[in-house]
Amino acid sequence: MEIHTDQQGIARALELAQQGLFTTSPNPRVGCVISKEGRILGEGFTQPPGQAHAEVQALADAARRGNDVRGATVYVTLEPCSHYGRTPPCADALVRAGVARVVAAIADPNPLVAGQGLAKLKAAGIAVHCGVMESEATEINIGFLSRMRRGKPWVRLKAAASLDGKTALHNGVSQWITSSAARDDGHWWRARACAILTGIGTVQEDDPQLNVRAVETPRQPWRIVVDSELQISPQARVLQGGGTLIVAARPNPEQEAALRDRGADVLVLPNAHGKVDLPALMLELGRRQVNELHVEAGFKLNGSLVREGCVDELLLYLAPSLIGDAQGLFNLAALDSLDEKVKLAFHQVQQIGPDLRILARFV
Amino acid sequence: MEIHTDQQGIARALELAQQGLFTTSPNPRVGCVISKEGRILGEGFTQPPGQAHAEVQALADAARRGNDVRGATVYVTLEPCSHYGRTPPCADALVRAGVARVVAAIADPNPLVAGQGLAKLKAAGIAVHCGVMESEATEINIGFLSRMRRGKPWVRLKAAASLDGKTALHNGVSQWITSSAARDDGHWWRARACAILTGIGTVQEDDPQLNVRAVETPRQPWRIVVDSELQISPQARVLQGGGTLIVAARPNPEQEAALRDRGADVLVLPNAHGKVDLPALMLELGRRQVNELHVEAGFKLNGSLVREGCVDELLLYLAPSLIGDAQGLFNLAALDSLDEKVKLAFHQVQQIGPDLRILARFV
Repeated sequence: MEIHTDQQGIARALELAQQGLFTTSPNPRVGCVISKEGRILGEGFTQPPGQAHAEVQALADAARRGNDVRGATVYVTLEPCSHYGRTPPCADALVRAGVARVVAAIADPNPLVAGQGLAKLKAAGIAVHCGVMESEATEINIGFLSRMRRGKPWVRLKAAASLDGKTALHNGVSQWITSSAARDDGHWWRARACAILTGIGTVQEDDPQLNVRAVETPRQPWRIVVDSELQISPQARVLQGGGTLIVAARPNPEQEAALRDRGADVLVLPNAHGKVDLPALMLELGRRQVNELHVEAGFKLNGSLVREGCVDELLLYLAPSLIGDAQGLFNLAALDSLDEKVKLAFHQVQQIGPDLRILARFV
Repeated sequence: MEIHTDQQGIARALELAQQGLFTTSPNPRVGCVISKEGRILGEGFTQPPGQAHAEVQALADAARRGNDVRGATVYVTLEPCSHYGRTPPCADALVRAGVARVVAAIADPNPLVAGQGLAKLKAAGIAVHCGVMESEATEINIGFLSRMRRGKPWVRLKAAASLDGKTALHNGVSQWITSSAARDDGHWWRARACAILTGIGTVQEDDPQLNVRAVETPRQPWRIVVDSELQISPQARVLQGGGTLIVAARPNPEQEAALRDRGADVLVLPNAHGKVDLPALMLELGRRQVNELHVEAGFKLNGSLVREGCVDELLLYLAPSLIGDAQGLFNLAALDSLDEKVKLAFHQVQQIGPDLRILARFV
């Protein structure tokens, strides 16, 4: 493979970034390619938190291959960092390495970077270009960018329904409306999220583990249960392995202690109506460094999240079936006018096994 | 354009067949190309009923261009007819013309043809091949083939819903859930149908004209209203222009006479429950030469048609919106087990303006 244009360089860097999809969080997924005269000298992508960033990986890769990067061009999917975090600034490493040019797909909105990485490079006499394949580079870090810009995660609500929009029979049966292919695909989306959120209704009905099983990942997402009344059983499977966050609307010291004994964390975050304050929870999850939040909940919590403007994206698996009189997708009040409907835009549609996967974004 | 393979010949013939999409019924849409040594000598497609079929059109086209078709290959999307109908047999015309080879995409299941067209050609010493791009050739005449094979039309049920499967607000408002692009696309599907069927509920609520307006067509489909109790107003817009068929479940001589005065036809076709016998209606429409039946009805009639196994295909426009508590797509009873769900398979998915168009077939 040779790199002759900025687009080729960033495209390759994006492929590399993809390899960190399940592992870099809370850091962004970044890929980096170093090339000279078309030849790739070194490549890398962000390692798990505390380990090397993409640029440092690519420099090390070039050194390992015995390649001299002086005068080379560096393609990176996100502006190199300029600050000391868990690792030293990548911009400094690039300056020290003597590269001639840095092409970044997009700038880093992280207030600790925000143009300073590029400025540092420029000040060192390195040619800098920013803005190549911006939309692809934005997609891969949609959660990190959301947290940096808005202080809250990118919230993706996953649901599975029949073509007539039904998610469960009246007797609660919902396993399975969609195919195993769609369910496995759903685990891929779970795996890329920092956290998976559900409600007490789903915990009581399905007792889900809420972890990633159908795809391989070295890192399990954090689990969160919205449980206003702290009704969760300490035996619930979602508590197994510890670290699960239970979000309640009122304190209950006894139950809280029991849950903490099970390794869970409890957060009390009420709104004025005695329910969990969902928008406040999103900000809290932002503070806790959640980039992408994956929601798999039922009719009621789905409805509350949509009503309270907490959802950015719908990940909807539609099965080619009709179910008729049954549970719907979202508990939303009846409207008097179609002007009041909740508006989205289709982002991507793909067939997954016999089912359809629809990504639609709230507008 | 040159024809060097059977696939190229049939592909071009299918393009020609497409030009008869709104006009050939009750005849099939057929395209025909005559070529020799790669050169196209003549082309044609089926004209409106009583006028020339595709093969005769192509022969006439070749003659008009001064091309000698002796020894040529004929590509035709459906087996040439062998019987005297409104026009003489196409197979005879091809034999008389002295062509050397005939390639048909699919055989004609019409009991008046059914292999006899090809047999007649073979008997005359013409080389015959059948079976090229069969699935495409089947799609374009899906209604004609259904009528020939099953004695009833291909029934396509059109619906428009929000992503959560809602078609109308509780106050009846349904205009408009989908975009004008989707509604115009819906008229293209109306135009290709022989008949459009609705229920008395839709007539009373929306007073639709049920004709084709958004696309140009020289022929309006026939209109059919399922109206068990003969409640339709003689002033209903669906009766304008005459010829509309009203299907009732019990006789009502007075109302029938009023409707006939308005140019309508009335058919009484009850089932054992005092409703219109929908499966019997489909067979009756087959007898009346309806190839493709386009259904645009409401929750109740949609549900009855699905429950009674009368629908072959769902043409569903999904808008990127959520509506919440509102009218659903199909009046179907609650299930106790997911095994009882109505099963379909996705056939085609396409974005139409901001909406999604889903074609799914009952399996």
